[in-house]
Amino acid sequence: MLDITATYTDHYELTMGQAYFLNGRKDQHAVFDYFFRKNPFSGGYAVFAGLLDLLKILENFRFDKEDNDFLRAQGFHPDYLAYLKDFRFKGTLYSPPEGDLMFPTRPVLRVEGTLIETQIIETVLLNMINFQSLIATKASRMRLAAKDGTLIDFGLRRAQGLGGYHAGRAAFIGGFDATSNARAARDYSLRASGTMAHAYIQSHENELAAFRSFAAARPDECVLLVDTYDTLQSGVPNAITVAKEMENKGLRLKGIRLDSGDLAYLSKQSRAMLDDSGLHYVKIAASNQLDEYVIRSLLEQEAPIDVFGVGTSLVTGQPDAALDGVYKLAHVDGRPVIKLSENVFKITLPDKKQVWRAIDDQGQFSGADAVSLDDEKTISMMHHPFVPHQSFPLERYEVVPLLNLVMEGGKIVYNPPSLSRTAQYCRERLEMLPVEYKRFENPHIYKVGISNRLKDLRDRLIRQYKK
Amino acid sequence: MLDITATYTDHYELTMGQAYFLNGRKDQHAVFDYFFRKNPFSGGYAVFAGLLDLLKILENFRFDKEDNDFLRAQGFHPDYLAYLKDFRFKGTLYSPPEGDLMFPTRPVLRVEGTLIETQIIETVLLNMINFQSLIATKASRMRLAAKDGTLIDFGLRRAQGLGGYHAGRAAFIGGFDATSNARAARDYSLRASGTMAHAYIQSHENELAAFRSFAAARPDECVLLVDTYDTLQSGVPNAITVAKEMENKGLRLKGIRLDSGDLAYLSKQSRAMLDDSGLHYVKIAASNQLDEYVIRSLLEQEAPIDVFGVGTSLVTGQPDAALDGVYKLAHVDGRPVIKLSENVFKITLPDKKQVWRAIDDQGQFSGADAVSLDDEKTISMMHHPFVPHQSFPLERYEVVPLLNLVMEGGKIVYNPPSLSRTAQYCRERLEMLPVEYKRFENPHIYKVGISNRLKDLRDRLIRQYKK
Repeated sequence: MLDITATYTDHYELTMGQAYFLNGRKDQHAVFDYFFRKNPFSGGYAVFAGLLDLLKILENFRFDKEDNDFLRAQGFHPDYLAYLKDFRFKGTLYSPPEGDLMFPTRPVLRVEGTLIETQIIETVLLNMINFQSLIATKASRMRLAAKDGTLIDFGLRRAQGLGGYHAGRAAFIGGFDATSNARAARDYSLRASGTMAHAYIQSHENELAAFRSFAAARPDECVLLVDTYDTLQSGVPNAITVAKEMENKGLRLKGIRLDSGDLAYLSKQSRAMLDDSGLHYVKIAASNQLDEYVIRSLLEQEAPIDVFGVGTSLVTGQPDAALDGVYKLAHVDGRPVIKLSENVFKITLPDKKQVWRAIDDQGQFSGADAVSLDDEKTISMMHHPFVPHQSFPLERYEVVPLLNLVMEGGKIVYNPPSLSRTAQYCRERLEMLPVEYKRFENPHIYKVGISNRLKDLRDRLIRQYKK
Repeated sequence: MLDITATYTDHYELTMGQAYFLNGRKDQHAVFDYFFRKNPFSGGYAVFAGLLDLLKILENFRFDKEDNDFLRAQGFHPDYLAYLKDFRFKGTLYSPPEGDLMFPTRPVLRVEGTLIETQIIETVLLNMINFQSLIATKASRMRLAAKDGTLIDFGLRRAQGLGGYHAGRAAFIGGFDATSNARAARDYSLRASGTMAHAYIQSHENELAAFRSFAAARPDECVLLVDTYDTLQSGVPNAITVAKEMENKGLRLKGIRLDSGDLAYLSKQSRAMLDDSGLHYVKIAASNQLDEYVIRSLLEQEAPIDVFGVGTSLVTGQPDAALDGVYKLAHVDGRPVIKLSENVFKITLPDKKQVWRAIDDQGQFSGADAVSLDDEKTISMMHHPFVPHQSFPLERYEVVPLLNLVMEGGKIVYNPPSLSRTAQYCRERLEMLPVEYKRFENPHIYKVGISNRLKDLRDRLIRQYKK
């Protein structure tokens, strides 16, 4: 959809780029890690999403004429401007597949390349991965709550501007079935969904006339909004009238939609009225301020709702609204590096690393990932990152490396799966995650350990920097 | 920036459009109101923003070839598809200027045109106005808290995907001075700002070498990030060393930036160390999880911070993350209409309306807006919308109409001010708003009244629909 050029970045990437350029450091080899620090929504996991959009942006990452004019006006050095004119990203990325589960404080993406190119892409990488992962995670929680119910993204009108575009995609990865967002449906081959607003009803002389005209114009996909005037006194009875008229023409009303009031009560009453009229096949859709907790509550009350339309809380990832992913330098010009912090938990892990997911003999995630140096071919023992003398053997698990090559020399080098396949992968990975990590209230913490060599290196660097 | 086509909408706008088209109603005249129901952030006002972007989108609103192919595949009727191919928005909009203050439950935008065109633009209108108004409002709260401090948008990396683009613009309207978002700066002529990340420091042998190299590459705009290893033991002393070296070359270090730890404590210590070295001119910037409450607290503690870099909470509008703006039909085919609700406060106001802001003889907002029918030339008495026998005379106020023509026949018909002028207008309007509506805790409620004729019409329609 979107004309994203290389100025879709923080200005400081460009000022740092100039300093690297002018000081002859731009071609030093660098390794950055993307990771996040806190699971969103007080949950026990996050869903990794946004990779393919990011990689496509990186394949086409360049400064166009307007960018160059802008940068010239900002007073950048002429030699640097000349360099940026032909700038392309030629770096290499390692990551899990989209739809995989990710946990805090261990690398999710590893980016390698020249110092200048790995630096300049920082912002767009964070922007794409943080947001889509946030929304895919939110969507997956709603999927857990809704069980087999149909979930539809209704959020575009309350989305954060153009953020609504990628929200539709991310929601699908996390388990949504369809979206109201026609443009996202167009570009990502999602199922588009939507029937009528209150204005449609109001624009007619009365509700029954509105229902009839809509059924005439859209007989196959007719869902009638029943709460414009009075759901049980007017909306549902009129919908039943039209459903019966449709039956006489050999057609079937697809559903009714409740958009206000007590959805548990109204859905039960509506279901009974429909069933009493022999309209067992007419589905009930509900919308209005839904989130995973409301959906769970509705189903606990046995509300007979077949379709949930979710808007604001999905596409904005309320209440968090952001995933706190960061991008940290781990290795440069042959040297492993760390970032110190007064908060010991924020000290970064140095060097080029691999992350291993331990899977038990039942095919379930073991409850911990391990981080090693990249040249360790496997890992059989991991150590607590900060607490001395706490270690955990991994021999009885299968350990699978998560960071695999997806881009090399600035080109996508894997065969991207369809979005349906990605959503399926997310579902499979969630099934491998034990239930205690998926509960909404105080979920179990998915642990991380580090290899002996990584621990030694990190501790040596801490001592060295603190001197 | 963005290739927004007419499918950037909810699918139901298009299915309703088809029903209007097939049932011969598409050219009926319609009037819609945009309004919102609840001030964001538990505040006392909201800032209206996003208008010019919306109007430019509407001027260019069309279905491109990919849109048409998509809609054909969705099974829309061939005649409707042929109609959409040449669809243009030819409607008319009335609104206040961007940067004005707006309050709940009264119209902010009035859209007139054919039923089909006014319906189809609903989603993009809500998407643009809801989001930019949310962010401009958040920014204005930070401006109130920061007083004369410099405010810089650092949010792109945590923004909701492409939402970061318009967030930079909206933040400027609400009172921000600059943005890290180079693309927003480019397209909206904002001041771009940004210097260095921790990675820049880490990529050098040591912090002092990093500071020196950066000062060499960017002597005029050098702000040094001092918390990579240890702010007071290493970062500030090294910055002072470099500042002194710069002085020897006739240069001046612009500032230092604190990005972690206790910002109140560290800023005071840093200020003292800088001042002791005669570096009174070196400014202190602070970032890291700031919002309007943290900024207020820092200034209450007399933290000597000159520049606040605000990220996540600004560009995502935390904690609300959305403004609840809606778009409701008020008049169609010669008939005024309302939407009923079990919640009396959600019953809409019918017909084509004007909104009047009452201003007292001191040039201050009076504390209430009045809504009348559009053909009322002024208003001298307003009534409580729901409570009988409560009215309020407006004779001692100047009443100024807020909804003025901005688009006619699908063309922008006013001379859009520069964004600086819009930000200035926002500042002026905030100065006209008494302080009790601007406080963060339990702000006073800015009231709304309606004219006698509007009240009579609304009540008559309620009785009519309830029959």
